[in-house]
Amino acid sequence: MTDMGMKVEQVLHMVGGAGETSYATNSRLQEKTMYRTKPILDNAIEEMYRTLLPERLVVADLGCSSGPNTFLVVSEVLGVVGELRRRLEQKPPEIQFFLNDLPGNDFNNVFRSLERYGKKIEEEKGELLVPYYVVGVPGSFYGRLFPCRSVHFFHSSYCLMWLSQVPQGLESDRGVPLNKGNIYITETSPPQVVEAYQEQHRRDFSSFLKSRYAELSVGGGMVLTFLGRKKQHPALGDLSLLWGLLAEALNSMASEGVIAEVKVDGFNLPFYGPSMQEVKSVIHDEGLFDLDQAQTLEANWDPFDDSEDDLAFDNVANGKNVARYIRAVIEPLIAHQFGDAMLDELFLRYADNRRWRINMLGSSKDRKVKEREHHTLVVFMKEEKLVTFDLPFYSPSMEEEVKAVIHKKRSL
Amino acid sequence: MTDMGMKVEQVLHMVGGAGETSYATNSRLQEKTMYRTKPILDNAIEEMYRTLLPERLVVADLGCSSGPNTFLVVSEVLGVVGELRRRLEQKPPEIQFFLNDLPGNDFNNVFRSLERYGKKIEEEKGELLVPYYVVGVPGSFYGRLFPCRSVHFFHSSYCLMWLSQVPQGLESDRGVPLNKGNIYITETSPPQVVEAYQEQHRRDFSSFLKSRYAELSVGGGMVLTFLGRKKQHPALGDLSLLWGLLAEALNSMASEGVIAEVKVDGFNLPFYGPSMQEVKSVIHDEGLFDLDQAQTLEANWDPFDDSEDDLAFDNVANGKNVARYIRAVIEPLIAHQFGDAMLDELFLRYADNRRWRINMLGSSKDRKVKEREHHTLVVFMKEEKLVTFDLPFYSPSMEEEVKAVIHKKRSL
Repeated sequence: MTDMGMKVEQVLHMVGGAGETSYATNSRLQEKTMYRTKPILDNAIEEMYRTLLPERLVVADLGCSSGPNTFLVVSEVLGVVGELRRRLEQKPPEIQFFLNDLPGNDFNNVFRSLERYGKKIEEEKGELLVPYYVVGVPGSFYGRLFPCRSVHFFHSSYCLMWLSQVPQGLESDRGVPLNKGNIYITETSPPQVVEAYQEQHRRDFSSFLKSRYAELSVGGGMVLTFLGRKKQHPALGDLSLLWGLLAEALNSMASEGVIAEVKVDGFNLPFYGPSMQEVKSVIHDEGLFDLDQAQTLEANWDPFDDSEDDLAFDNVANGKNVARYIRAVIEPLIAHQFGDAMLDELFLRYADNRRWRINMLGSSKDRKVKEREHHTLVVFMKEEKLVTFDLPFYSPSMEEEVKAVIHKKRSL
Repeated sequence: MTDMGMKVEQVLHMVGGAGETSYATNSRLQEKTMYRTKPILDNAIEEMYRTLLPERLVVADLGCSSGPNTFLVVSEVLGVVGELRRRLEQKPPEIQFFLNDLPGNDFNNVFRSLERYGKKIEEEKGELLVPYYVVGVPGSFYGRLFPCRSVHFFHSSYCLMWLSQVPQGLESDRGVPLNKGNIYITETSPPQVVEAYQEQHRRDFSSFLKSRYAELSVGGGMVLTFLGRKKQHPALGDLSLLWGLLAEALNSMASEGVIAEVKVDGFNLPFYGPSMQEVKSVIHDEGLFDLDQAQTLEANWDPFDDSEDDLAFDNVANGKNVARYIRAVIEPLIAHQFGDAMLDELFLRYADNRRWRINMLGSSKDRKVKEREHHTLVVFMKEEKLVTFDLPFYSPSMEEEVKAVIHKKRSL
């Protein structure tokens, strides 16, 4: 039994509600990164606002999930625009926020916490607060979500590493699983598996760019943050290790007969952590956006470990914390394949594997270095500028030609 | 203990999910009315589309709830616009639908059924389908929900009879409940109670009109459908009877000690069924909209009774059906005041009261006439036309003056 038939759009979502295992309670990594990407985000919003000085500003957050982070971007945009419009002595614009996620996301929770966050935002911003409106948009960002040229600014945090589907071609022609024992790319994955993942990522990111290009207003921008890797080969780096430990836990449960081995063999994640080079290559090939900024941030796997001190490192706590954060993200996919009953056991084993892994690593210094390895890619893009109009050999017929190019691109 | 502190925004919502007592399963009345108001709605959409011929059309449904009816208006607008743009040989516009309801509404259910309804709509419309996008808007329509001039068409079906709050002034200065034994206006309600309800309705409907006026694009329109009454006095007509039977059931449970009498005494519905005259008077006083069409429809209380034949009338089935439909609408408010445990018992008693009531009425003919008494008001409004520019004594200074009037109205 394989997971090829799984519809990621229907299954993938962060754990809803506000309980102990929920994403709302376990999204500290995402929150911490948001603070680190703040300068890029603020700069992008400022540039867009200065360019357009719009009366009405439409901002979309793609993959908003459900939890405290959902409103971080709302608060950030309100802060930057509120302050800037005062400095520029502009009339307060109205901002419409579109919070997008897959239909399985807990939008009820988002909508019901809106009033509470609204009050908090009001207190924080005080007189600088501009009128704003929040709506929810269900659907996959690998397709169209908005009418043409209707959004001024796109933001997405920790979502684009999720693929639209598990790659095809992870089985041989005879239906034999090629990535047996793994659930993501590892050093034992055959080249076909690596290629299938790379191809799926290329296709998905390209669809993403085309859709956003059609939807973006002239002068708009886009800041994207997602997990990726620093090393060139997809089997190297922390993501292979992160999912490798989960595969280990699944394999051990299968070998004890707790879950069916055939289900583990056919299970692969709809996930890909690209390198910056791969990201740039898709952006370049599509030719729709200018890449304004590109950064790679490094972060601790354990979102609760703020220690800079090696001696303070607690490998038991680390194991548990990483297990909780992984569970909040991956539980619905696992439950879809293996049922609910095995979840607690699986993540106990995950925490244990993680702890052992750390013990096996050398000195405490090495441990810290090796484990502080999450790589987050941040890119800021703007519509590609077609500067033909300024060229000395400009002619009216050429203007028509350029317009036709723009029109063609827009209607992709 | 009274319900004065109840926040209607947080408590009022139709019963979620898709179970036996859910609104999704019990919204036939609303569905039937939608078909009867179709000519007015179609005409309004057509007029708006012809006037604007927009590339992008924004349509908002206020009080969309969660169930099959949620997508009726989406389907209707897509049908009319799809056909019309073909006849007028226009490029297909993109339509963005904003589905609004209070934050307690089951938006998760709406979003998760979107794909299924999307497929149905696709099959129905075939080649005439224009691109469309659906988003959800949580919030009370008695306040602002959208940026200025950002919506072309508003629709609302069976929501405007819900007030923003239980009227104030339903207690004496000493805190004695004035509407004891009742939960809505009846013939035994003192004049202060009637006035408090009328005043709350006037204030709410007036806020509604001001907000929509600010949000409506020039040339846009609005079709509103809601329960009301035909008779002049608020204590006369079917709504007093409908809620009177529920009050009876509550009173009988209180007298038996099943629920606390003091809780019944302090319970009043945030609901008002206005007469067409009252509606017109608020529209006139605000002076923001021209009333283009106004109709009163009559419908059977029992949404499942399609019989025209008196002999086929089944008073047991009628009692049960009315109880189910009422429950899907009112359960959260009741549960908020009295707890969950008493709900089944309450609606059994309601169905019984309803059956007895029918038996007590005279001949079967009388029964039918008397019980087919739901009155639904339908109004189609457009922005008030300021025709000053066409007057013979037109002068530039006057144009400025008129603009100032428009501007003032817009920023209310």
